[in-house]
Amino acid sequence: MYDNLKRVLIGKPLRNEESDAQKYGILWGLPILASDAISSVAYAGQEMLIVMLPIVGILAYDQLSLISGAIILLLMILTLSYRQTIEHYPNGGGAYIVAKENLGTKAGVTAGAALCIDYILTVAVSVSSGVEQITSAFTAFEPYTVIICIAMVLFLMIGNLRGIREASKIFGLPAYAFMLALLLLLICGFAKIKGGYVAPEPTVQSLGKPITLILLLRAFSSGCTALTGVEAVSNAVPNFKSPATKYAKTVLLLLSIIILVLFGGTSFLANMYHVVPGERAMLVLIAEEVFGHSFMFYYVTITTFVILIMAANTAYSGFPLLLAVMAREGYVPRQLSMKGDRLSYSNGILLLSGVASALIILFRADVTSLIGLYAIGVFISFTLSQTGMLRLWLRTKGKNWIPKAFVNGLGALVTSVAVVIIGFTKFEQGAWIVIVLIPVLIVLMFHVKKHYETIRKQLKVTNKTLEQADICTQKYTNRVIVPLSSVNKSSIRALKYGKTISENVTAFCVATDEESASKVKDKYKELGTDIPLIIKYNPYRKVVEPLLEFIESAEYEYKKGDIITVILPQFVVKRWWQRLLHNQTGKFIERKLLKHKHIVVAVMPLQLND
Amino acid sequence: MYDNLKRVLIGKPLRNEESDAQKYGILWGLPILASDAISSVAYAGQEMLIVMLPIVGILAYDQLSLISGAIILLLMILTLSYRQTIEHYPNGGGAYIVAKENLGTKAGVTAGAALCIDYILTVAVSVSSGVEQITSAFTAFEPYTVIICIAMVLFLMIGNLRGIREASKIFGLPAYAFMLALLLLLICGFAKIKGGYVAPEPTVQSLGKPITLILLLRAFSSGCTALTGVEAVSNAVPNFKSPATKYAKTVLLLLSIIILVLFGGTSFLANMYHVVPGERAMLVLIAEEVFGHSFMFYYVTITTFVILIMAANTAYSGFPLLLAVMAREGYVPRQLSMKGDRLSYSNGILLLSGVASALIILFRADVTSLIGLYAIGVFISFTLSQTGMLRLWLRTKGKNWIPKAFVNGLGALVTSVAVVIIGFTKFEQGAWIVIVLIPVLIVLMFHVKKHYETIRKQLKVTNKTLEQADICTQKYTNRVIVPLSSVNKSSIRALKYGKTISENVTAFCVATDEESASKVKDKYKELGTDIPLIIKYNPYRKVVEPLLEFIESAEYEYKKGDIITVILPQFVVKRWWQRLLHNQTGKFIERKLLKHKHIVVAVMPLQLND
Repeated sequence: MYDNLKRVLIGKPLRNEESDAQKYGILWGLPILASDAISSVAYAGQEMLIVMLPIVGILAYDQLSLISGAIILLLMILTLSYRQTIEHYPNGGGAYIVAKENLGTKAGVTAGAALCIDYILTVAVSVSSGVEQITSAFTAFEPYTVIICIAMVLFLMIGNLRGIREASKIFGLPAYAFMLALLLLLICGFAKIKGGYVAPEPTVQSLGKPITLILLLRAFSSGCTALTGVEAVSNAVPNFKSPATKYAKTVLLLLSIIILVLFGGTSFLANMYHVVPGERAMLVLIAEEVFGHSFMFYYVTITTFVILIMAANTAYSGFPLLLAVMAREGYVPRQLSMKGDRLSYSNGILLLSGVASALIILFRADVTSLIGLYAIGVFISFTLSQTGMLRLWLRTKGKNWIPKAFVNGLGALVTSVAVVIIGFTKFEQGAWIVIVLIPVLIVLMFHVKKHYETIRKQLKVTNKTLEQADICTQKYTNRVIVPLSSVNKSSIRALKYGKTISENVTAFCVATDEESASKVKDKYKELGTDIPLIIKYNPYRKVVEPLLEFIESAEYEYKKGDIITVILPQFVVKRWWQRLLHNQTGKFIERKLLKHKHIVVAVMPLQLND
Repeated sequence: MYDNLKRVLIGKPLRNEESDAQKYGILWGLPILASDAISSVAYAGQEMLIVMLPIVGILAYDQLSLISGAIILLLMILTLSYRQTIEHYPNGGGAYIVAKENLGTKAGVTAGAALCIDYILTVAVSVSSGVEQITSAFTAFEPYTVIICIAMVLFLMIGNLRGIREASKIFGLPAYAFMLALLLLLICGFAKIKGGYVAPEPTVQSLGKPITLILLLRAFSSGCTALTGVEAVSNAVPNFKSPATKYAKTVLLLLSIIILVLFGGTSFLANMYHVVPGERAMLVLIAEEVFGHSFMFYYVTITTFVILIMAANTAYSGFPLLLAVMAREGYVPRQLSMKGDRLSYSNGILLLSGVASALIILFRADVTSLIGLYAIGVFISFTLSQTGMLRLWLRTKGKNWIPKAFVNGLGALVTSVAVVIIGFTKFEQGAWIVIVLIPVLIVLMFHVKKHYETIRKQLKVTNKTLEQADICTQKYTNRVIVPLSSVNKSSIRALKYGKTISENVTAFCVATDEESASKVKDKYKELGTDIPLIIKYNPYRKVVEPLLEFIESAEYEYKKGDIITVILPQFVVKRWWQRLLHNQTGKFIERKLLKHKHIVVAVMPLQLND
């Protein structure tokens, strides 16, 4: 039943060879890699206003342009900085790799931990913001916000378990549709203002306090989320057609220009139209002012929703891949490096969906609450990546190393300042969770690594092992114990199998009283076997303890080094509910016995018909 | 860690002999068996008022006495009827046994299903009502009603897992304390009225409709809950000192008189003092009127709370015992008949706690909502039990059989009429759930029975089996397959064990590509063993399917009847979190292989240090 459900939802298994890579140029590379970065236009400006409006009222609108300017400056520095990463890492320069290669394992794992948190929040924030667009345009859906968000996460999860290829060209179309939507919004918005339209006075309930530096910095921190996703291009260099490096650099430049136009433009429009986001999303409010409830209003809303879901989808390709890389190096559980039936990293996808859903439920899909946790992870990985590049130039001192070091150094400097600002101003709004979580994750990751290392050493076949092993000639001495609770066909099979694999077989029965003991004894005698039956009494109705006691007793004459095979019969029933009708004690006994290295548990099935 | 927690909560394991039975006479038998029956005084009258007050207003108070009279008449008939059950079943005459013996298996199972539901509702209703007393007296606790209820269920669960003995005398004290409390309440209440006290006019918001028969019947249905628990005495006859039958009959008579006094008396007081239950509990309201906020007010409240929790506790001894009896006969899963460490039927206790908690949460611990489901189960078991007794007299025709048959026949008639009334008037209030659930449970129980029967037949050792078996001489032909994913110390152990138990050993490896295959081949060659290594390619990264294919292929030359032992190594780690770091694929492989009757899975542990 489970298998059938899986087939319907996930599709038929794919062969390894089917994982081909479609390479792209600028035309498709740009939109495919852009969704995460450009979609943040939907929430970055809005969250800046939400920080300022309740404190300073309509004065906030003027400050919006100022802070947007600062963020655009940051964007330019990052663009220059990442162009150098692209140039130097044609095989993909994710923060994890750049930090690990240049700053060492600890920095790499730190970047890895920060990125993990970042990916999870990308899903939570993008899905929540995407659904916010819908509930802002169609307010009737508002009470179902959380449910719709969870449905979207499940949709992404199933899609990715089936193996959506991010590189598919069809994924580029929504990005162009969104860019067109916002461009039309900007043009019509400006035209309407130029045409003499005066926006109605906003009804802002504010404390009417003066503007403070801390307030501006807090707004800046919210706005920094506009830059998340910029690093996507540098990770994806190998996916470009040749000349990949050149194409990638061009795409990054174009992407930055687009963010500049859309982010700057919408901030300016928000200022002009004095929209008050909070209950409803900023882009929807602007579109409503500019277009009324016309086709264009719905076009803007829907494309914004779609691009945000696409942005969440980028995390679905990034997160499992990052975990798979880290799993192969032993920092996270091995299971995360295994591909599922459809060649996607199923466990990573499930993990991402689970944690992101939990966050969405916990924060009731409220973008403003979630944004407090976002950005800090991204900027930590920015900082580590840029510092890694700086270190690279300082160490290798290649051609033009001084200007290159200056660019990456500047990048590292401004992003680290941003980390401090975000950590400080958003501390109470949730950044503390991330600040606590990252070191915890790092410690866990190193613990996991250490465990795998120890195991590897213990399992390794050395020359010394080979001398001892000599499996061509040596054998164990094998003794068999068949535990019985009553005498039935399954015990007969077990005893027969016992005789097959050893000369030394003992039947063993635990009874609670004399009466049940003599009943077993009588029935056992009928079998007419020469295998001795040992009966032990135990008032606690336990099996494992008396068995282990017996093995250790002088009566059994166990010699060190011998193997004892315990044969456990297992009923195999046809339907799942029938399994509930049989004791699961077999599993417990197996687990307890296997704690002893000289005991092998042989499970012997007995198929039962209905 | 789990074991330690269990020890602290549940206590150390008990020996079988420690389950002794304290026998009691009238003095302690009465209070010990009374709690379920007398505690219903706390909600039966109250729920009758809650049905009528909103419809007919203060007219309800007069009707209260009328309906209470009808219920007391019912009580008398039941008492006479059950005295005969006690006489005839000195070993305990629960409805399940009486119905099964006299009316056949189907009636027995029906009574069993009805009783199961009844016990669960006893817990849900008694705990909810008990906590309602507390939140009525201390209204600050009101918001935490559900949480307190769940805490009480957990308390009862842990207590019963530890093995509270219901028969302990200490359990008799609260019943006497409660009887004393209500008796004082009645005396002072009447005295106050006689002294000229006039109760304030009640503020009842009612529809002011006329009294209809259907309304009276609905109130009657709610009041019928006063009779739940009367059957307890007939179940417990063997727990009495000799002459047990005489003592039990006396206790039943006394119990009925006490219910008559307390139920009749409180109904009368409610009428006199015109209390309006709903927001707060009736007994608490009466006590407040009579005593003000004096010591006696709190005494009544607390003893009522305690007796209701005690009533819930009776279900904790009845339900697991009933299930254990039914499990031994094969109608419910076997696990329910196994005693835990502390000699209590742990699984039954856990099941009862789980379902009762779910009901409490679902109905938000609202007594009025839960009462709609209650009573119908009890009255179905009453009817079956009385009909069983009637059938007994009609069949055996012993001494005085005609008056005896008349008494039980009357009992069966009135209780069956009550079933119809309750089912009809409470249908929409929840009785439909029970009416649907009982047939479902019956069908399930017969399915379970059938399954166990089939299995028993298949396992049974017959003379024919013994002729075939001949395990003194016959052996299987055993072949061994050792699956490898890489060559390490654990594979060496497995190969060596394989050689120990068979002459025919094959190493088997599934590779995804040539590269990994040749790596394994090279390392395997170093071992210098004569065991052949078979490598199969599988692009889906599966293990079981290629292995089964190989076994069935001509290459392996499998002969029907041979046993194939597959040796699976299993890493045994020291800490629970380390288990998460290792593939659980071993378990999946084991389960899939065991579907084939000729395959034995031998699990070989490899202890790993940190």
